[in-house]
Amino acid sequence: MAEAVTPRADDYSQWYNDVVRKGKLADNSPARGCMIIRPNGMALWENMRDELDRMFKDTGHENFYFPIFIPERFMEREAEHVEGFAKECAVVTHSRLTQDEEGNLIPDPESKLGENYIVRPTSETIIWDTYSKWIQSYRDLPLLYNQWANVVRWEMRPRLFLRTAEFLWQEGHTAHATKEEAIEETERMLDVYTTFAEDYMAMPVHQGTKSESERFPGAVDTYCIEALMQDGKALQAGTSHFLGQNFAKAFDCTFTDENNEETYVWATSWGVSTRLIGGLIMTHSDDQGLVLPPKLAPHQVVIVPIYFNDDQKTDVLAACERIQEELADAGVTVKMDDDDTQSPGWKFNEYELQGVPVRLAIGPRDLENDNVELARRDTREKTIVPQAGIAERVSDLLDEIQTSLYTQAKERRKERTHTVDDYDAFREVIDEDGGFVWAHWDGSAETEERIQEETGATIRLLPLDREDGESGEDMLTGEPSEGRVLFAKAY
Amino acid sequence: MAEAVTPRADDYSQWYNDVVRKGKLADNSPARGCMIIRPNGMALWENMRDELDRMFKDTGHENFYFPIFIPERFMEREAEHVEGFAKECAVVTHSRLTQDEEGNLIPDPESKLGENYIVRPTSETIIWDTYSKWIQSYRDLPLLYNQWANVVRWEMRPRLFLRTAEFLWQEGHTAHATKEEAIEETERMLDVYTTFAEDYMAMPVHQGTKSESERFPGAVDTYCIEALMQDGKALQAGTSHFLGQNFAKAFDCTFTDENNEETYVWATSWGVSTRLIGGLIMTHSDDQGLVLPPKLAPHQVVIVPIYFNDDQKTDVLAACERIQEELADAGVTVKMDDDDTQSPGWKFNEYELQGVPVRLAIGPRDLENDNVELARRDTREKTIVPQAGIAERVSDLLDEIQTSLYTQAKERRKERTHTVDDYDAFREVIDEDGGFVWAHWDGSAETEERIQEETGATIRLLPLDREDGESGEDMLTGEPSEGRVLFAKAY
Repeated sequence: MAEAVTPRADDYSQWYNDVVRKGKLADNSPARGCMIIRPNGMALWENMRDELDRMFKDTGHENFYFPIFIPERFMEREAEHVEGFAKECAVVTHSRLTQDEEGNLIPDPESKLGENYIVRPTSETIIWDTYSKWIQSYRDLPLLYNQWANVVRWEMRPRLFLRTAEFLWQEGHTAHATKEEAIEETERMLDVYTTFAEDYMAMPVHQGTKSESERFPGAVDTYCIEALMQDGKALQAGTSHFLGQNFAKAFDCTFTDENNEETYVWATSWGVSTRLIGGLIMTHSDDQGLVLPPKLAPHQVVIVPIYFNDDQKTDVLAACERIQEELADAGVTVKMDDDDTQSPGWKFNEYELQGVPVRLAIGPRDLENDNVELARRDTREKTIVPQAGIAERVSDLLDEIQTSLYTQAKERRKERTHTVDDYDAFREVIDEDGGFVWAHWDGSAETEERIQEETGATIRLLPLDREDGESGEDMLTGEPSEGRVLFAKAY
Repeated sequence: MAEAVTPRADDYSQWYNDVVRKGKLADNSPARGCMIIRPNGMALWENMRDELDRMFKDTGHENFYFPIFIPERFMEREAEHVEGFAKECAVVTHSRLTQDEEGNLIPDPESKLGENYIVRPTSETIIWDTYSKWIQSYRDLPLLYNQWANVVRWEMRPRLFLRTAEFLWQEGHTAHATKEEAIEETERMLDVYTTFAEDYMAMPVHQGTKSESERFPGAVDTYCIEALMQDGKALQAGTSHFLGQNFAKAFDCTFTDENNEETYVWATSWGVSTRLIGGLIMTHSDDQGLVLPPKLAPHQVVIVPIYFNDDQKTDVLAACERIQEELADAGVTVKMDDDDTQSPGWKFNEYELQGVPVRLAIGPRDLENDNVELARRDTREKTIVPQAGIAERVSDLLDEIQTSLYTQAKERRKERTHTVDDYDAFREVIDEDGGFVWAHWDGSAETEERIQEETGATIRLLPLDREDGESGEDMLTGEPSEGRVLFAKAY
């Protein structure tokens, strides 16, 4: 093999980096903690963006765009918000560079800003400042808007896609006349994220709400989806916040309701980011590199022609082109790699690393027999199949791979999900197997903190719908618990 | 009328602001010089982006994404580049906010960065630093990449879309083995921009190269397209730069060619931005507000139901929905506005301000006669037409509007294009009529500067293909000229 990735069992963290790099998804950059998203990674993100965008529009949302710079004073308006974000802000203080006496570039002291700007870590403040101008009457409501943008949160321990100083994301910001409507919106968008994660990413998720300590700074309630990675750690994959009237109060955003009374507006915000790519990688990829679900793969199929002389070349390429066209007509995204400077073996390896779901190869013998070699990336099975009916066969196979990836991920999650009642058992499970653990919790921040300190596990979510009879006793304190919550170590 | 825009003749600049605001395209923001792009403006930009992106992909390009932060030291590497951009940079100097003794938020002095970052004004430096790692051999070439991104250039006199501190754009960055190939790419992308401007924006443009004084900082040659606005001023609508080996040398980016010799890589970069929206507005809009070409309009058709009681409402809405479906099936993007809280008259005015190309209205009498009222935004003509065959009629009309907008803009440009040989005549034309002026220039920066100082006009471009016999004498100095160049006052 020309290149391989470090096996998961040897060094999971190195495996992840290898998959990202050898899959040509992203690189580190000279700007500390920021990543370069390479064409393969960007094509994947664009597919994710387009599907999500369609789902947002189907639920009545439109896109807008707010400035990247947030006036420093805006951050002070919502107390929890500034507390949450002030420690990881990129601060713009000057508007010009100049040369010092030694000829080095420095910020021009004369260009020092009267008011500093921070590069947006999220946009609630600047958006709610504007909503207070856009909203006067109940007729102006609801506002159902979203933006696709880059945001910056200074990261001390960056990891490609999972934690980067700059990342790409979308942030929805909606304004409503009633509390009920805002909560409904919060839950609707959580469902959209769930559908996207499960049906497109083939990544099973649990839905729930966060405990107070993990809530978004400024939110009344943070809803989330949580997925389980192959190393037994959880990944928060999307959040949808019910913001109550907190930002409306901070930015004095009121409206006249149908009874002619002045009321504060109700708010939600919700977001997913390029972090999802990290989740996608750690859900499906293996020791041969990236594995991508067909619904999101930039190329669903790659065709590799094989020939040993010019006569063969002409015929093989003609057959490949014919199949390429058939597949494209059937709506399959297909790439043909007829690059002469690389061997078929090199290409096989390369497209495995890049996670292309299906590979077709055609050589002189296949041509003689009207066959084609078909290899699926997820199971690495190869079969020889007739060229006739290839488009339908491949379409069916792509569906099968999509379903199979989801089923397998769900199976893995099931194997690593535990229910425990005893704190010693809990510690043992967290230490030895990791995974999701359902356990009783008394609802206090102190207990939560102690469990985190002692085991490294955090409460990932409180499930949305608790059934009756789920009450019990906190595994640590023995205090009453209203139902089990989901624990795990997390990214 | 509920709202109208200031007539162009009264105050062109106010007219422009009114069209932007009342068309709900954009607003000023609390971040100085940055704009809020409203949903109408964003939908328009997304349509422009999607068409351009398709054209970039059809010419072999892929998207990637580079960090928003550029290390300060990178700016020093290319002398002209730093000269061109250092004076308008947002400089990030701290990574944290904290509170001072009085409780005010300030940049935490302890978070002062060892190296400052600038928010990208353009990305040649950070990209060529990376290309020097990606490129070793001629086999790695060409690299044909593009990114869609936000950039920041501090603006002293901001105007929505035309000059904003932050704007959205795309920047293509390509790397080539030979000079010829790089120049070919530069010209290819200029053609892509030209096709987009003329066929989609219905905005006629001239192609050419810039004089040295107007070149992109770091470029060997800057190609551009220039359009004429309704006030007789020119707008640079897109640029494509042949960068030679300047950035390759600055970032030590070499490759081993087929003869095993080490050579510097050849470069291009090319970009268009949200500034195009300013050009679109000033090409087509009128004293009733925005006028949009059908190929880019977020909604090509709006349907307004008219009724005076509930019985009528049921029937009218049913007819409107049927027509909406017919149009959608024909590939027309259509919006039905059945909002009960606004009158038809208010809606008529609103969608004129928003520039929707075609408006359909159906009232009880139309229903009786199986008719529909059809109004086109560009000419404001109304006609009563049969409901039967409405989809085909509307599709044809949209094509006709698209063509007509282009023809009219070209006609206006022709009327305001002058050819002069005499400097007094030149001054008079520039002063009194504005517009494009073809005149002889001796090629010297001094003459160019003097003309600009005395008349306010700049050289917009040197035409790409000069025919024989076009030589003459500079209108100001009488020195020999190789051919006429295009002058105008410009945005």
